[in-house]
Amino acid sequence: MLEIIVLAIGKIKNEFFANAITEYSTRLKPYAAIKIQELAPESFNDSSRDKAKRAEGERISRALEKYSGAEIYLLHERGKELDSLKFSEKMASANGKIIFVIAGALGFDEDVLKKYNQLSLSKMTFPHEMARLILLEQIYRAATIIKGKTYHY
Amino acid sequence: MLEIIVLAIGKIKNEFFANAITEYSTRLKPYAAIKIQELAPESFNDSSRDKAKRAEGERISRALEKYSGAEIYLLHERGKELDSLKFSEKMASANGKIIFVIAGALGFDEDVLKKYNQLSLSKMTFPHEMARLILLEQIYRAATIIKGKTYHY
Repeated sequence: MLEIIVLAIGKIKNEFFANAITEYSTRLKPYAAIKIQELAPESFNDSSRDKAKRAEGERISRALEKYSGAEIYLLHERGKELDSLKFSEKMASANGKIIFVIAGALGFDEDVLKKYNQLSLSKMTFPHEMARLILLEQIYRAATIIKGKTYHY
Repeated sequence: MLEIIVLAIGKIKNEFFANAITEYSTRLKPYAAIKIQELAPESFNDSSRDKAKRAEGERISRALEKYSGAEIYLLHERGKELDSLKFSEKMASANGKIIFVIAGALGFDEDVLKKYNQLSLSKMTFPHEMARLILLEQIYRAATIIKGKTYHY
């Protein structure tokens, strides 16, 4: 069974997104052991944005140290883009845990970007809540592709 | 003011998506005159899929005939990808109406794909309900970029 961890800065505050994310998490249960681990975001204003981004980056790095051996992918719009089939092949070929990391409203600190592989959901910039929803839907889609279900046309 | 029409096959049945789409439509009101025009989907089974796709394609073509002179873009995963800034520039430079067309669960018929320009939200395949949500969020983001608001980082 697929073992997936979504590591994300911040909670889902918008209830529309929260409900949709819960829906895909529930649908995923027969196919994957999925855990969503939320890290606290830093509060910031216009002048403290960089400092907050660095603090969040350090928090992400510390959290990832626990998962040595896992395949780690930061979600970033300038990362490698896969179509849904290639994404499912990547998931099917993973040895052990796969960890997807979603930054908060500030995005990733450069030091974190240098350390880990990056995947892109799109060239477009999405709100982090929508990115989480899209990721969950694509993981669900990948699981149905792997199992040969007719969800993906 | 931006004049945007979203022409889509099918209704939004999932209430999570419907609520989120309504939220972005409401937020867009100060920036754009946006109209969502829904066309009826064809019902289909495994053997009638192609026929249903063709019928939906003809319905889309007929609906688009009314909008001669508008800029028309089909949303398709193999279309041209823009980042959020380029997408906002495209919207800012439009002369008159912009029409985005979203296919239903079956995707676009080849005859329709040949006739119109295509834009891509992502290389990934999304459910049509999620595609509509992502499009609305990107239109809202583009509007805030054009107006110089700090929604987009």
